[in-house]
Amino acid sequence: MTQGAFTIGIDLGGTTTRMGMFDARMDLLASRSIVTRVAAGPQACVEEMADVVRALLYEQDSSGSGDILGIGIGSPGPINLKTGVLGLLPNLPGWENFHLRDALAEATGFPVILESDANAAAIGEWKFGAGRSTGLDSMAMITLGTGVGSGLILNDRVWHGMCGMAGEIGHATIDPEGPMCGCGTRGCLELYSSANGLVRIAKSVAESSQGTSALLGLMNSGEELTTLKLAMLAEKGNDSAAQLVFQRMGRHLGQGVASLLNTLDLPMVVIGGGVAGAWRLFAPSMFEAVGQYSVVYRLTAPSQFDSCEIHRPFICPAELGASAGLLGAAALPNLSKANSRHQENVELANA
Amino acid sequence: MTQGAFTIGIDLGGTTTRMGMFDARMDLLASRSIVTRVAAGPQACVEEMADVVRALLYEQDSSGSGDILGIGIGSPGPINLKTGVLGLLPNLPGWENFHLRDALAEATGFPVILESDANAAAIGEWKFGAGRSTGLDSMAMITLGTGVGSGLILNDRVWHGMCGMAGEIGHATIDPEGPMCGCGTRGCLELYSSANGLVRIAKSVAESSQGTSALLGLMNSGEELTTLKLAMLAEKGNDSAAQLVFQRMGRHLGQGVASLLNTLDLPMVVIGGGVAGAWRLFAPSMFEAVGQYSVVYRLTAPSQFDSCEIHRPFICPAELGASAGLLGAAALPNLSKANSRHQENVELANA
Repeated sequence: MTQGAFTIGIDLGGTTTRMGMFDARMDLLASRSIVTRVAAGPQACVEEMADVVRALLYEQDSSGSGDILGIGIGSPGPINLKTGVLGLLPNLPGWENFHLRDALAEATGFPVILESDANAAAIGEWKFGAGRSTGLDSMAMITLGTGVGSGLILNDRVWHGMCGMAGEIGHATIDPEGPMCGCGTRGCLELYSSANGLVRIAKSVAESSQGTSALLGLMNSGEELTTLKLAMLAEKGNDSAAQLVFQRMGRHLGQGVASLLNTLDLPMVVIGGGVAGAWRLFAPSMFEAVGQYSVVYRLTAPSQFDSCEIHRPFICPAELGASAGLLGAAALPNLSKANSRHQENVELANA
Repeated sequence: MTQGAFTIGIDLGGTTTRMGMFDARMDLLASRSIVTRVAAGPQACVEEMADVVRALLYEQDSSGSGDILGIGIGSPGPINLKTGVLGLLPNLPGWENFHLRDALAEATGFPVILESDANAAAIGEWKFGAGRSTGLDSMAMITLGTGVGSGLILNDRVWHGMCGMAGEIGHATIDPEGPMCGCGTRGCLELYSSANGLVRIAKSVAESSQGTSALLGLMNSGEELTTLKLAMLAEKGNDSAAQLVFQRMGRHLGQGVASLLNTLDLPMVVIGGGVAGAWRLFAPSMFEAVGQYSVVYRLTAPSQFDSCEIHRPFICPAELGASAGLLGAAALPNLSKANSRHQENVELANA
């Protein structure tokens, strides 16, 4: 790969679109964040993205389009990766059926590789974050944000599934009799382990006999309840009710991780997203639940097999924070070029 | 492949070991079933298997070992596929830490490829059964027997996971507050959708207000309660309580299938094993639960995406019955020879 083989990554979000230009070593050369003007519609937003692409190129004194290997974009799902068309997106109302990949390719003149944002984040952590120095060819990343997303890397490739909808672990059933989820199912993981899920659990704890005046005070302060505020109360304030909120959340998350391990026997699970910042508060109960609900996790204890170096799957926090999706998106054109097996996959996805 | 390239398949079970010799077109030339003398120990059983191999060769007037491509054997799991060593097997007590692959290779003089019985059955259905004419490169098979096993085919290969323990869907958590499973976890799928699970549900229904005198009579007859007897009562006897047993079982199975689809977005799920014979009795409630608990299943309804031929995953009964494991085992040497990607995988698994 020549030094001039730049790539551009785009992390399309419901509120912000982050864009960056990277060199062949994946060093960030320049970046921009723009407000995603959802109501203006997808075509207007694509044209803004194309303007930013041109500005990034201009800044780098790039001699022309020949230097750009391509654009990788991570978008909220569901996306039809075969056609490059958006599905019904809760955070991008009115954008459904938009041909995002083709529109962006036309507006910029560059090849575009489209991925779901969760898969782009998984690629980012795998190649440049928590998975960087492991040499592993398979892992899962679970992103705990407003909702819960996930991406699977299997045998050096993103696993897309039949329709590009694999990795919907946010809608794994944790409690079949649990509360109703927006997806139409009861008791999904997202209801327990997302930022919104934390608030829901906090409400339930605050109103129970285990509630404290400090947690009730935080809930009724009139300000938005955030993961950070809850974590501060639990850690700095040593508040038993706030700690219980994270313990419950960790327990449910552990059940979801256990399900993933039982199905796929993965060597690594990376937990990212804003809520993962409270790792120390939820990790102990998460690990306890993983041990309780995953027979694979228990059986991979070294004592089960003599004379064999079997290791437990490594469950760890993400390292790249909000940059994972941007880095993963920017890596898409390189992966597509460098890895023929990935190429094959991307071609299928983008056929 | 020459006509002389025979393979031998072995399906090692806790009560019976089935063995067959197949030609290059996978036509069965000769077969034998022997009692698995578990208490005699694994080395004695391996020597019996080697005797049968010699008898099969003799019967076919085979001119010698040069005609045999290899032996494929499916064994109850967990197995360490890297070393070919058995783990702690509930149905083969005292066999743990036995080097099955090496012992069989030494006793017969042929190369041996070891797989879990669930994976062997998945290969059998994929290549020769329900998946035969689909051309699909990925599917799952769930085997409803005494317990619940499963095998995953992803991108034309068995997905083994890190330690060969992928596909433990029998221990997927269906109800975190459910009854205790032998694996040490609560509410596993196996407790609801295996032959033993059916009996457990039947007991609970019989003792409830929804019980009938016919079901109670069957339970208290002193004879062993089998899936077949329950199915006869439900279908021929039109007994509402027996029908309810299968509806409940189907509902829980559907939840497990939903979890698999949400994680992997697979194009095909095949349901096999003895209990699957009651397909007509449990399938309606299974499909209802899959629709209820799988957002991927709901989203793959064609209306979600314009101008795109997206199909629902095909969930269907197995076609090969008890022969799936034998056929899959016998196919292992051919897969290993013909498919370099599979070969790579098998080499890793058997390294």
